Amino acid sequence: MSTVRLWTDKDVADSPRVKAVFDDIRTTRKSEFVNNFWRALANQPALLERTWSSLKEVMFKAGVLDPLTKELIYIAVSATNGCSYCVHSHTAAARTKGISDEQYAELAAIIGMANETNALATTLQIPVDAEFLVE
Amino acid sequence: MSTVRLWTDKDVADSPRVKAVFDDIRTTRKSEFVNNFWRALANQPALLERTWSSLKEVMFKAGVLDPLTKELIYIAVSATNGCSYCVHSHTAAARTKGISDEQYAELAAIIGMANETNALATTLQIPVDAEFLVE
Amino acid sequence: MSTVRLWTDKDVADSPRVKAVFDDIRTTRKSEFVNNFWRALANQPALLERTWSSLKEVMFKAGVLDPLTKELIYIAVSATNGCSYCVHSHTAAARTKGISDEQYAELAAIIGMANETNALATTLQIPVDAEFLVE
Amino acid sequence: MSTVRLWTDKDVADSPRVKAVFDDIRTTRKSEFVNNFWRALANQPALLERTWSSLKEVMFKAGVLDPLTKELIYIAVSATNGCSYCVHSHTAAARTKGISDEQYAELAAIIGMANETNALATTLQIPVDAEFLVE
Amino acid sequence: MSTVRLWTDKDVADSPRVKAVFDDIRTTRKSEFVNNFWRALANQPALLERTWSSLKEVMFKAGVLDPLTKELIYIAVSATNGCSYCVHSHTAAARTKGISDEQYAELAAIIGMANETNALATTLQIPVDAEFLVE
Amino acid sequence: MSTVRLWTDKDVADSPRVKAVFDDIRTTRKSEFVNNFWRALANQPALLERTWSSLKEVMFKAGVLDPLTKELIYIAVSATNGCSYCVHSHTAAARTKGISDEQYAELAAIIGMANETNALATTLQIPVDAEFLVE
Repeated sequence: MSTVRLWTDKDVADSPRVKAVFDDIRTTRKSEFVNNFWRALANQPALLERTWSSLKEVMFKAGVLDPLTKELIYIAVSATNGCSYCVHSHTAAARTKGISDEQYAELAAIIGMANETNALATTLQIPVDAEFLVE
Repeated sequence: MSTVRLWTDKDVADSPRVKAVFDDIRTTRKSEFVNNFWRALANQPALLERTWSSLKEVMFKAGVLDPLTKELIYIAVSATNGCSYCVHSHTAAARTKGISDEQYAELAAIIGMANETNALATTLQIPVDAEFLVE
Repeated sequence: MSTVRLWTDKDVADSPRVKAVFDDIRTTRKSEFVNNFWRALANQPALLERTWSSLKEVMFKAGVLDPLTKELIYIAVSATNGCSYCVHSHTAAARTKGISDEQYAELAAIIGMANETNALATTLQIPVDAEFLVE
Repeated sequence: MSTVRLWTDKDVADSPRVKAVFDDIRTTRKSEFVNNFWRALANQPALLERTWSSLKEVMFKAGVLDPLTKELIYIAVSATNGCSYCVHSHTAAARTKGISDEQYAELAAIIGMANETNALATTLQIPVDAEFLVE
Repeated sequence: MSTVRLWTDKDVADSPRVKAVFDDIRTTRKSEFVNNFWRALANQPALLERTWSSLKEVMFKAGVLDPLTKELIYIAVSATNGCSYCVHSHTAAARTKGISDEQYAELAAIIGMANETNALATTLQIPVDAEFLVE
Repeated sequence: MSTVRLWTDKDVADSPRVKAVFDDIRTTRKSEFVNNFWRALANQPALLERTWSSLKEVMFKAGVLDPLTKELIYIAVSATNGCSYCVHSHTAAARTKGISDEQYAELAAIIGMANETNALATTLQIPVDAEFLVE
């Protein structure tokens, strides 16, 4: 249950500013489905515009990392933050982008392993090796 | 300053059990350099063996994700956990595996973006869309 | 589903020690409603007394920060910790204290932004500027 | 020691794109001092532009929360994330914006208290009260 | 709702590799009940084997910490990470190992307290005392 | 470098309120050494008194968990939070209370393991088993 109202398509139709973003989301993602995250942000049009614009640039603009790799990174952050919504939405996105069961299995193993060694490094307060520093 | 002693190569030479792991680290990574993480774990041979064996399987064994992608995921977890040692060591590893400045720039942008939208989703307590659930 | 029993008002009536705290919560907050957090702590009277006493001092005693500002800070911490219960209860408290939709919108934007720049600073391991240090 | 080069003013002078942002930072904040965060982002001009543009909108544009309150929220997030750089830079910013010792003392007490009750709520897995949900 | 299929006992019966691990879980824990964590990992036999093998060594092998103390540490980590599943499963495990209400009450108080003082130390960026460093 | 002044013994001598707490810390811990955490809190006498009073009750009052077990839990929280100061101070406290190398080794292994399985449970969004819920 969210702390704010989730906008229905009918609500969106009444706000040209929100509608413009929803239209662009649908066009960019080539899908009619708009998930709750954007329906919640619709209450704050400036935040909605800024967040979608940033997400579109970071996640949809052609870059040097392929779209699936970007989603793997997003899932790793979301799991480490313990954000249930984000894990679900970006795992679904990774599925849309064609992740195989084998890739997903390796992703989970790396996220688990990284959290284990992170915890060991912090428990033992291991000092950064001089070899790792940029001159 | 770590909470435990960091083993020098001389210390390692005196413990066949630790030496076997250090030898395998050097062979597997094709480098004489062994970083402080392993020198700290050397105090606990069973943990050293188990951690290296897992890391070798997860990060070095040929799989369906390429070695650089694995490091990007590791950096994403480490940054989200705020583990300074881990960020430094895995950024260095990503450099060894040929990350370009453009790839690193995109990685940083995604980690920042993911943490922002994670925080928004949690602040607004957005419910998981039915569309995201596995039947 | 909590890991401990949530005390009903009938349970509370049977324990003078717990009742004294619940009475003070009702008087201090000028409301008959006592939320589940306190009904769970009721299993540990000493912790209940100490936690309510601290919370009363920190959040209800007149200070130099106004009550609503205090709730904004509480929500920021709760969202960053990913504590769903805490986000819900302190967002409700902020509503009671008169937060406007505009204030809430700005709060969410700041929490999102802060988590993004925190993640960038940690990914890039930016050193603290000498200008920021207290002599 | 950062994972990327920190741009000096001399480096900045050679890049019109970066220089435009640095000029705007100096004008907006009415100070010649540009901290390391921006000198690190200078390696990624698109990220630098987007981040500064967002931060300017969220933190400097007149809104319904006053500038000091915004910094208190930023510090609360930064401390909860354990981001040392961010705690230092936003505590310095709060000083510039006139935080008193009493206000800072109350801020620290609230951040501590919120983290304690968050941990209790999570340990005890307290269910959200129906009263807290938005209809 | 998990992101992967949870294996039923019937699914397990069809995979000798998974069945071997489930059999060992049942024998080691002296209980027919196998919780969802393992039913999810069953999708990745190598991860299932490695994780169970590590958990068995760390949590079930006789060592110098008693089994209940180990569960208290596990709960402390799980609560601090905000992992709801982990808090529930390890609290149940602590109950199986005989935790008393008084012990559980002290555990919750310590986890709360530790999170409070952690937050204070980070907000105030307290430098490590020379006395705490290992020579 | 802390964000506030660290009080020297000479500063403390001039404030009867702070001196009373420092005297009690020395008596309770049977040691002349007072670490930086308390020297930072001295700037906020009410917070200093409340925090020491809570810590004394939780960590020093005879209960059903022994003093060393309490420190193990404190270290587990501190490492998971990534609080360097707290890891160092409570590891030093555990040494004072007689932790053996074997106990410390097991502690580190459990903290690592717990963070790994927490991350796996969150990545896979494993639903809580009905068997774990309290009726």
